[in-house]
Amino acid sequence: MTLQRVLPFTKSLLEQVVQKGDAVVDATAGNGHDTHFLAGLTGDSGKVYAFDIQQQAIEATRQRTEAFRHVELICDSHAKISQYVTESISAAVFNLGYLPKGDHTIITKADSTLQAIGQCLERLKTGGLVLAVIYSGHDGGSEERDAVMDYVKQLPQTRYDVMKYEFINQQHSPPFLIAIEKKQQRQKK
Amino acid sequence: MTLQRVLPFTKSLLEQVVQKGDAVVDATAGNGHDTHFLAGLTGDSGKVYAFDIQQQAIEATRQRTEAFRHVELICDSHAKISQYVTESISAAVFNLGYLPKGDHTIITKADSTLQAIGQCLERLKTGGLVLAVIYSGHDGGSEERDAVMDYVKQLPQTRYDVMKYEFINQQHSPPFLIAIEKKQQRQKK
Repeated sequence: MTLQRVLPFTKSLLEQVVQKGDAVVDATAGNGHDTHFLAGLTGDSGKVYAFDIQQQAIEATRQRTEAFRHVELICDSHAKISQYVTESISAAVFNLGYLPKGDHTIITKADSTLQAIGQCLERLKTGGLVLAVIYSGHDGGSEERDAVMDYVKQLPQTRYDVMKYEFINQQHSPPFLIAIEKKQQRQKK
Repeated sequence: MTLQRVLPFTKSLLEQVVQKGDAVVDATAGNGHDTHFLAGLTGDSGKVYAFDIQQQAIEATRQRTEAFRHVELICDSHAKISQYVTESISAAVFNLGYLPKGDHTIITKADSTLQAIGQCLERLKTGGLVLAVIYSGHDGGSEERDAVMDYVKQLPQTRYDVMKYEFINQQHSPPFLIAIEKKQQRQKK
C-alpha cells in the first residue's frame, strides 16, 4: 500500500520533525500510544507533556510509558497547556473525539480544542508541527470539526502552512489529518 | 520544511510506486517535466506514454526527453488513452488546467478528463496510482474540479483508496492532489 493511512502518515511527520532532546505535547493522551511514540522520539534528554482530563486515560498512559522518566502526565484540560508548558516545543499532537474503549459521551469540545491549538502554536518552534487527527462521526464531532476547520483556514499563510490529508471515498466519516507548520518569518527589508 | 508541497509530494508517490520496466502514462505532457521524471523511474526497459493535444507541448516534451528512447509522444486527446495503451500501467499522472507559458484558453475539460481517468483506472495494476494535480483558479477550472471530485468520491472503497492532499490556508486557489490507489481485490469465500 503506497498511500499511507492517516495515523501512520501522522507518525511519519512526527518522526521527521521531532529530534532527540525536544519538548513536545500530547494534547489528548488517551490510551497513551502517541505519548509512548513521542517519548521514544525525544529520548530521555527531551520531554513529553501528556494531557488528558480523564483519570482513566492518565492511568492507561502511565502504564504504557512507565519505562520512561521524561513523560509528565497532566490530568487537566489541554486548554491550560500554556500554564504547564513554558518552553518551546517542536510538535504537538491531538486526537480529537472520545477515549477509545472509554465513555463515548466524554468528548473533546471545540472551545477548549481551539484554545489548546492556539497555545501550542504560541509555543511552537519555527519548522515545528501541530497535528490534529479529527474524528467527526460521533455526536458533537461535526461541530468540533467545523470549528477547527474555520480556525485553521484563517491562519495567516505568511506564518503557517496548513495541510489537510484525507481519504474521500470512505463511508462512516473516517478521521482526517490537519497539519500546521510554523514557517520561518521573512526578514523585513 | 517538513510538509511537502503538492508537486514534490506527487513526485515522491511516483517514486514509491513506479519500478524499472513499468509502463506509465503522462496524461498531460505539458512542458515535459513529469514525462522526463517518469522516463527516469521506468528506465529504458519500461515505457512512458505522454499525451497532449497541443503540438507545442509535444515539441517541448520531445526536446526535454530526447535522451530517452522509451518515451512515446502522442499528440491526441487523453480521452483516447485506451486506444494507445494496451498493457497494464503502474501509474498515470494528470496536471489539469492550461499549458504553462502556453495559451491559457486551451484547458483540460471535465468530460475528456473523466474519460481519461477512467481509462487509466482500467489499465492500472493492483497497487498502482492515478495522480491528478488539480488547478482551479482559471476560467473553467472550478467546473472541472467539481466534476473530478464528484467522480472520485464515488469510486468504490472496496476497489480504490482515494486520497486528497491540500493546503487549505492559501490564497489564489493553489493546486491540490487527488491520488487513487487500486486495492487488492478480496477473494470471495
